[in-house]
Amino acid sequence: VENSDILIHLFVLFAAARILGETFQAMKQPAVVGELLAGVLVGPYGLGLVGGEGETLVLEVIAELGVIILLFTVGLETSLGELRQVGRPAVLVGTIGVVLPFALGVGLMLGLDYENREALFVAAALVATSVGVTARVLRDFGAVRTVVARVVLGAAVVDDILAILVLAVVAGLARGGISELGLTVTFLEVLVFLVIVVFAGPGVVRKLSDFMHLPIVPGSPFAFAVLLTLGLAALSGVIGLASIIGAFLAGLIFEIRKDEVATQIEPVYEFLVPFFFAVTGTHLDPSVFADGHILGLAAGVTFIAVVAKVAAGLLGGRQYGRFVALTIGVGMIPRAEVGLIVAAFGLRLGVISSDLYGVVVVMTVVTTIMTPPILSAMLKRHTLETPELAGE
Amino acid sequence: VENSDILIHLFVLFAAARILGETFQAMKQPAVVGELLAGVLVGPYGLGLVGGEGETLVLEVIAELGVIILLFTVGLETSLGELRQVGRPAVLVGTIGVVLPFALGVGLMLGLDYENREALFVAAALVATSVGVTARVLRDFGAVRTVVARVVLGAAVVDDILAILVLAVVAGLARGGISELGLTVTFLEVLVFLVIVVFAGPGVVRKLSDFMHLPIVPGSPFAFAVLLTLGLAALSGVIGLASIIGAFLAGLIFEIRKDEVATQIEPVYEFLVPFFFAVTGTHLDPSVFADGHILGLAAGVTFIAVVAKVAAGLLGGRQYGRFVALTIGVGMIPRAEVGLIVAAFGLRLGVISSDLYGVVVVMTVVTTIMTPPILSAMLKRHTLETPELAGE
Repeated sequence: VENSDILIHLFVLFAAARILGETFQAMKQPAVVGELLAGVLVGPYGLGLVGGEGETLVLEVIAELGVIILLFTVGLETSLGELRQVGRPAVLVGTIGVVLPFALGVGLMLGLDYENREALFVAAALVATSVGVTARVLRDFGAVRTVVARVVLGAAVVDDILAILVLAVVAGLARGGISELGLTVTFLEVLVFLVIVVFAGPGVVRKLSDFMHLPIVPGSPFAFAVLLTLGLAALSGVIGLASIIGAFLAGLIFEIRKDEVATQIEPVYEFLVPFFFAVTGTHLDPSVFADGHILGLAAGVTFIAVVAKVAAGLLGGRQYGRFVALTIGVGMIPRAEVGLIVAAFGLRLGVISSDLYGVVVVMTVVTTIMTPPILSAMLKRHTLETPELAGE
Repeated sequence: VENSDILIHLFVLFAAARILGETFQAMKQPAVVGELLAGVLVGPYGLGLVGGEGETLVLEVIAELGVIILLFTVGLETSLGELRQVGRPAVLVGTIGVVLPFALGVGLMLGLDYENREALFVAAALVATSVGVTARVLRDFGAVRTVVARVVLGAAVVDDILAILVLAVVAGLARGGISELGLTVTFLEVLVFLVIVVFAGPGVVRKLSDFMHLPIVPGSPFAFAVLLTLGLAALSGVIGLASIIGAFLAGLIFEIRKDEVATQIEPVYEFLVPFFFAVTGTHLDPSVFADGHILGLAAGVTFIAVVAKVAAGLLGGRQYGRFVALTIGVGMIPRAEVGLIVAAFGLRLGVISSDLYGVVVVMTVVTTIMTPPILSAMLKRHTLETPELAGE
């Protein structure tokens, strides 16, 4: 693969994503669905214009930069104080949303006579919400500061922390034993990271900003924002959290000339974010839907994945009334990278078959693609009928 | 290589580039030198933190996006009309700057008893200016609309066209014969591309902009600018021109809400451009300077590379007076990707040895690193003493 080929492929991907995205928008549908379909269309399972062997890593990294910028932007628009106000429901939604799909997943798989280890891995893949798609739809509706958004974002952080503990347990069991010490260390690492970022973060950022006003190092708040985002995203990855959680936290604690940086991030967003959704689309192999055996189990697993998160939203968010709670539940439906990582891990350990891996892939794709249209329809009704929920 | 590792490496590279860049700026030195040195420092030949086997392609593509954004920005700040005004000197500087280094290069190599084919390849590698470094320094000085900038940019386009013809001839000779038909086709391709872009481009862009104002496809001028840039850069690559020439042309003909797009491109610039210079730095292996044999020849070749371009500037730009003409010549000194491509091509054909390849690498690195400080010093004097040259 030559550089100039990749440039053509990036052009094709961006062009397809924008054209389909804007066409969907013109039809009053979420742009993100158009972008996902653009990826399916030009990707290796569609026209095969993009996404060949040698360039997978390049596309993945550009996509990851996109989703990091997306979550930084959303974090920037979220206030730490407002997030704390929804602490209780967010923790509830996050916790129930981990326990319930895991329990139902294990139940289904064991009921269908799969082995214990297979059941544990598939169930673990159902656990973590990937908040990128929901965050995008919320942004497109200007709904980042609504209760729905804050609960979903808070729950996504909780959910991701619990998910890495579940993964640690399941991986431990598969390897023939869990080390309690190892689990405690993992948990403490994550906790220390969060506490430091959320409590010390704003102060450190402010201090650095004083430093940046000194004449010796002029600095640019925007470059500092990029640095903080890349840094916390990378650090999140190192301790096992999703990199987007770190990017979200970076946005949350960033407060130097916030409005200016928010304006500056927009073009970067417009450049990179479509790549995330289009590249996600390139992974969809529509032929998996043609295999009856995989499809049957996938339908069952996907059903559980959806129902469990909706139930978590209804239960954890019931103080906001049924409609808002339901919207929160829908916002938690999409699964992506973490589910795939768990499944790929199981595949590599030889614990699950490539058929079961296919089942998890179908689940992540379906939950990712189904959410934007449903959530959009609900948000339209939402803003029309319950404008008072924008605050609290 | 995992995604999360690459994220860490991107963070390290960006952090090093910004910190050294700003330190240099604080010392009244060009930031771009700091960014280049940052790449040397953290790259595989320095601390080895960044740039390992598996991630080279990822870094190259991100760097290429950076230099494309840089040249688009410079194109946006250049007016086609003003560029036409310097047509004659630009063509002169470009043409002399191809003929002279080629002739001197062949002379030196034959004088040192190298074979004909070796002499031709090394000389061909001396031909093409890589205008990225100069464009960056000019931008940092707010000097994009000066005569110096316009002549250098125009000459870089001419130079690149002639360089691909030289490469076609040399490659043909090495393979044992040139096809006149092939050469004519190459030349016509490039000519048709340029004529269409420069003459039809502005009209097409305007037509598309009318289309974008229709309510059915709302569109964003910024997204359209990105699309145009990626598209022309990729197309340039396809017909054998450097992708940055296409990006420059995209900026030159783009005219939809130009001021707005110019403001929006800035953050993307700040995000991606430092990667180009830092990644360029990672390629520098300082140990080549320790090999006396390579170093001697490299010194001679580099001397010719510098002198020939300075002479081209002095001759082609003499109507502007000696100082401006000299500055133009210095602006033409940097060689990068095209020189390396020619040398790598000769290496693959078995025409030149890895020692001669090393010589070309030293030449590109030295010409790239030496230009910013010299050009900066000259531009400082320039704006101080000859402000009237800003216009014409």
